[in-house]
Amino acid sequence: MDGGTTAHGTAARAQAVPAGAGGFRGTHELRTSIATVCLAGTLDEKLRAVAAAGFDAVEVFEPDLLASPESPAALRRRVEDLGLAVSLFQPFRDVDDVDPAAVARNAHRLHRKCELALELGTDLVLVCSAVHPGAVRDDALLAEQLHAAAEVAASHGVRLAYEALAWGAHVSDYRHAARVVAAADHPALGNCLDSFHVLSRGDDPAGIAGIAPGKVFFYQIADAPKLSMDVLPLSRHHRCFPGQGEFDLEGFHAAVVGSGYRGPVSLEVFNDLARQADPATTAVDGMRSLRHLRDRTFRHRPSLPPASPAPSLPRAPAVRSWAFTEVSASPATAGAVTGLLAQLGFTCAGRHRSGPLELWSSGDVRVVVNSRRDDVRAQVSALGLATPHPHALHERARTLLAPAVDRAVGPGEAEIPSVVAPDGTWVQFCADEPAGDGWLADFAPCPPAPVPAPREGERAALTGVDHVALPQRFAGFDGAALFFTSVLGLDPSPTSVVPGPAGLVRTRALTSAGDAVRVVLSVAPTSAMLRGRPPGAGHIAFATDDALAAARAFRRAGGRPLPVPGNYYDDLEARFGLDEGFLAQLRENSVLYDRDADGELLHFSTRSVSREFFVEVVQRTGGYRGLGEANAPVRMAAQAAPPPA
Amino acid sequence: MDGGTTAHGTAARAQAVPAGAGGFRGTHELRTSIATVCLAGTLDEKLRAVAAAGFDAVEVFEPDLLASPESPAALRRRVEDLGLAVSLFQPFRDVDDVDPAAVARNAHRLHRKCELALELGTDLVLVCSAVHPGAVRDDALLAEQLHAAAEVAASHGVRLAYEALAWGAHVSDYRHAARVVAAADHPALGNCLDSFHVLSRGDDPAGIAGIAPGKVFFYQIADAPKLSMDVLPLSRHHRCFPGQGEFDLEGFHAAVVGSGYRGPVSLEVFNDLARQADPATTAVDGMRSLRHLRDRTFRHRPSLPPASPAPSLPRAPAVRSWAFTEVSASPATAGAVTGLLAQLGFTCAGRHRSGPLELWSSGDVRVVVNSRRDDVRAQVSALGLATPHPHALHERARTLLAPAVDRAVGPGEAEIPSVVAPDGTWVQFCADEPAGDGWLADFAPCPPAPVPAPREGERAALTGVDHVALPQRFAGFDGAALFFTSVLGLDPSPTSVVPGPAGLVRTRALTSAGDAVRVVLSVAPTSAMLRGRPPGAGHIAFATDDALAAARAFRRAGGRPLPVPGNYYDDLEARFGLDEGFLAQLRENSVLYDRDADGELLHFSTRSVSREFFVEVVQRTGGYRGLGEANAPVRMAAQAAPPPA
Repeated sequence: MDGGTTAHGTAARAQAVPAGAGGFRGTHELRTSIATVCLAGTLDEKLRAVAAAGFDAVEVFEPDLLASPESPAALRRRVEDLGLAVSLFQPFRDVDDVDPAAVARNAHRLHRKCELALELGTDLVLVCSAVHPGAVRDDALLAEQLHAAAEVAASHGVRLAYEALAWGAHVSDYRHAARVVAAADHPALGNCLDSFHVLSRGDDPAGIAGIAPGKVFFYQIADAPKLSMDVLPLSRHHRCFPGQGEFDLEGFHAAVVGSGYRGPVSLEVFNDLARQADPATTAVDGMRSLRHLRDRTFRHRPSLPPASPAPSLPRAPAVRSWAFTEVSASPATAGAVTGLLAQLGFTCAGRHRSGPLELWSSGDVRVVVNSRRDDVRAQVSALGLATPHPHALHERARTLLAPAVDRAVGPGEAEIPSVVAPDGTWVQFCADEPAGDGWLADFAPCPPAPVPAPREGERAALTGVDHVALPQRFAGFDGAALFFTSVLGLDPSPTSVVPGPAGLVRTRALTSAGDAVRVVLSVAPTSAMLRGRPPGAGHIAFATDDALAAARAFRRAGGRPLPVPGNYYDDLEARFGLDEGFLAQLRENSVLYDRDADGELLHFSTRSVSREFFVEVVQRTGGYRGLGEANAPVRMAAQAAPPPA
Repeated sequence: MDGGTTAHGTAARAQAVPAGAGGFRGTHELRTSIATVCLAGTLDEKLRAVAAAGFDAVEVFEPDLLASPESPAALRRRVEDLGLAVSLFQPFRDVDDVDPAAVARNAHRLHRKCELALELGTDLVLVCSAVHPGAVRDDALLAEQLHAAAEVAASHGVRLAYEALAWGAHVSDYRHAARVVAAADHPALGNCLDSFHVLSRGDDPAGIAGIAPGKVFFYQIADAPKLSMDVLPLSRHHRCFPGQGEFDLEGFHAAVVGSGYRGPVSLEVFNDLARQADPATTAVDGMRSLRHLRDRTFRHRPSLPPASPAPSLPRAPAVRSWAFTEVSASPATAGAVTGLLAQLGFTCAGRHRSGPLELWSSGDVRVVVNSRRDDVRAQVSALGLATPHPHALHERARTLLAPAVDRAVGPGEAEIPSVVAPDGTWVQFCADEPAGDGWLADFAPCPPAPVPAPREGERAALTGVDHVALPQRFAGFDGAALFFTSVLGLDPSPTSVVPGPAGLVRTRALTSAGDAVRVVLSVAPTSAMLRGRPPGAGHIAFATDDALAAARAFRRAGGRPLPVPGNYYDDLEARFGLDEGFLAQLRENSVLYDRDADGELLHFSTRSVSREFFVEVVQRTGGYRGLGEANAPVRMAAQAAPPPA
């Protein structure tokens, strides 16, 4: 807590300065590399981002070089000054051709590109399998032409890494590529393995073990979602970092490492959103994904040859529950937040000894209201998570490049190990027992406030936090999911797409074991982003055992639930055949309803306190695990409606 | 010309007020309808947009109803007050089931929805073929269940229009649906034809003629691009209005009208961008697309039964050439525009008699520089197009709902028929011969300015305008293409996607017959939009017969070409094996080069005058028709680089 520096904007900048990688690297770890095409910006901006994220090396993607005003020699010096190396120059396309004149032209081109690679400081050039109509379709002739190309390269002291593109005209399978490379039999010719081209075809990486040792010259890695589209547009637009897609990259990584390969592992992601994002953030995401992948791979395969290093990430300690959530608001609007909490049955439990923070509680449910800053709209600003090992979790987060929170701790105050999530929200690690870290003692008791006595049957205790929803910046959705899955070990649900009045909203829940902690990420339609931050997405959802009673108590305390159209309830009746009396109660209390094979959901929302904050109250029965996505359009339409006079 | 009200923002608002449809409708024209799902906003906003665009009716998409605070009866009154009708209520899903209990539940649900449809003022409910695992897979049983459903509907005086979803579990082909409907044999049951579900499967619409007369209850229409993805995501996210995609909708429309169908033609488009766009603009796009489709269909098929009405759109007269282009700039920056023109060999040919407009010319190439407004960045603000029939083209544009330009014409001044394009650019129709409309006479001669004498061989005359590039707003790209293709009869090229330092830029050229007029639309990556308008996209490209000479003359006159990296020229040599002397000249003059099977392109750009304006000079040889897309990343990177000190 203490959102003194918690505003999303400022905290986000902290994100661009990753934690150091000190002590992370084991003997058998592959060096890390990333292709410049993964990142937005000029080539110089890309190189700086790559260095800052702690990579060892960079693949230079030729279009980035062509658009750079710097000479190759100057770029080489720049790379070296940044503590990087160039791992590879790419791509050299369409090397083989049935037309001898074209073969001669390609040899000329290859001479030039080998010279260029050396000027850049690498002796390795990526050669893709040909995709043009004149591609050689005879393996013997292809091997002959590749041998000749390797001779050209060798004359410069350069090596070629041949890669099967999944959409190659003749060679599209890495095992086919490896056979041709073996037949070409030239020391300057080897294979490039790319997880995308193997796994997008559904090919088995077990064949990697069959490639002669030393003949894998390079290893590129990318993940991808399972989209129902052709492999070429999937590759060009939707690749993502390991863990962000649906490939079995642990298995692939194990296969490559198990084969004895000891070159770099290099991210090569073509992604429409990453091409627009802050390159420093993207580079951190990439490094985070590699560290997390390595950790999972070795932790799950202790016998991985040759001698697996001990995982260098602290194991993710269980996130057991919510210690608190923090809402920041300006001094002028903090009263609207605390007023809403009071209507929900919270009372003021303490005032911070050294700042404008109030602790509000309802039983064990705690909300900190922080009004330190004038310039924030009411919004969730910190997640306080209870874990048996706060410091281990903090260390894990730092190793995964989460920036530490830099806050002044007053004399005698508790220090809570904290990091900043990609969207600027603070994530704070508390001991399982609040007494354990003593942060509660930083709050002096509030004077008791008169609380209206609840009517019998109208007060339903809130039992906890069902979820906290954090709206994400454009292009930040996948990076935030990677953060919460890798740092906290949360399990991501599939993304759902919900139509709202301003467009489609993407939503994804990430849950800890047993659903104790559930974080919901959402990203608004671009047009809404163009008009500012997404309306109505950010909220805290409290859990209850009786949503109808909670809604009645809220209304009785003067709370105003978000109105729900009558048409919605008529449809509930038609769809579910609900009991008339029950339906009338839902209708009267503006409580939404959903049902699936496992259970039911009853939930209501308050009117928004700001564009970025409202409160929801959620009751689950049976094994219902969703978020009531079917009801989200009704909520979003009500939130978009002009406020009542 | 006269950008007095030309700023993109203001002009765009004019777009939302469509021209009236007066006198358009022929006897045999189908009534026009649109589904509410096509549009963004609340249901009330949607209805207002639909009425303003001149539709006869609206399909109510149930989720829009559920999210509306208005009762069905109140909505009916609202629809009627707006001069609309409800053509259909939709969708009713999964009517059939192998489980008798589910069939009973569905009958209950259908009773409710029939009541609801009547309250809304329609007797027609759309029933989709089932997609759930329990869908009936026996045609006889399915016909039996559909008959029973029709009985339910008929008991309310409601009819059901049964539609084969392309991804239906058992029924996915419209001919199959028609057979089942025929077998069910109930007067309250008919077919709904949807061009998307027929054409996305590649099915032949000829079978429509085989459906019994009167058994087509409803006709939905949508276009779609040919994307390499499954039909379900294509349908849910990428449908578009007729003419915006790649389906043969003329053929489909002719098949439906030819079958004797006389109900409404109803747009049903699920499109991610339209869901975010201004609903008034989207509705106008929809109506424009229907009028254009109808015109093409009947014009190309004069014998279409029963008695084809004469096309009601004036035929698009040929757009022959550029009369002028107009650039708007603030008084403070207009000098930068005219200075650039002077460096390119233009001289001031006249000053407008009644406003701060200057006419600059180089031979027959004319640019109007308009500095009437303080608050515009330099940008292309009007396109002056020469045509044999300016008034016919204007009438056609107005019938296609282009807002007329409302400008004050001074006494004695020429009036140029003009409309406003969706992005706010004025499109002005001039007679083929400038003398024909006399607008040149509105300009008084400038005092002659001293012009530096060109060196021998350094002055290359500009021969015309190669193209004008107009950056489009987010979600406005497809609407702008529809405008230029329908109003001006331009022929669209496929969209190309070009990587820039801030993300992928989509670009599309639209050309008149013989390439005399070429308009290029582009849309920047969203992140660039989030930071403002796209940098560097808007420009005028002048044509020349000698780009190298033009570049030399430009530099000699003090012009500063956009710098091109040396790496780019090294690659040109490697790729094309260009003559060393020629390559040196390209390099020295910052001229870019491309070649394809048909010819060559030489082109250079000036530094940007504003984020939205620069000038390009283009030389084409042979039959080269592209825009040098391969060079665009180099240009965009140079434009993104910080300006030189």
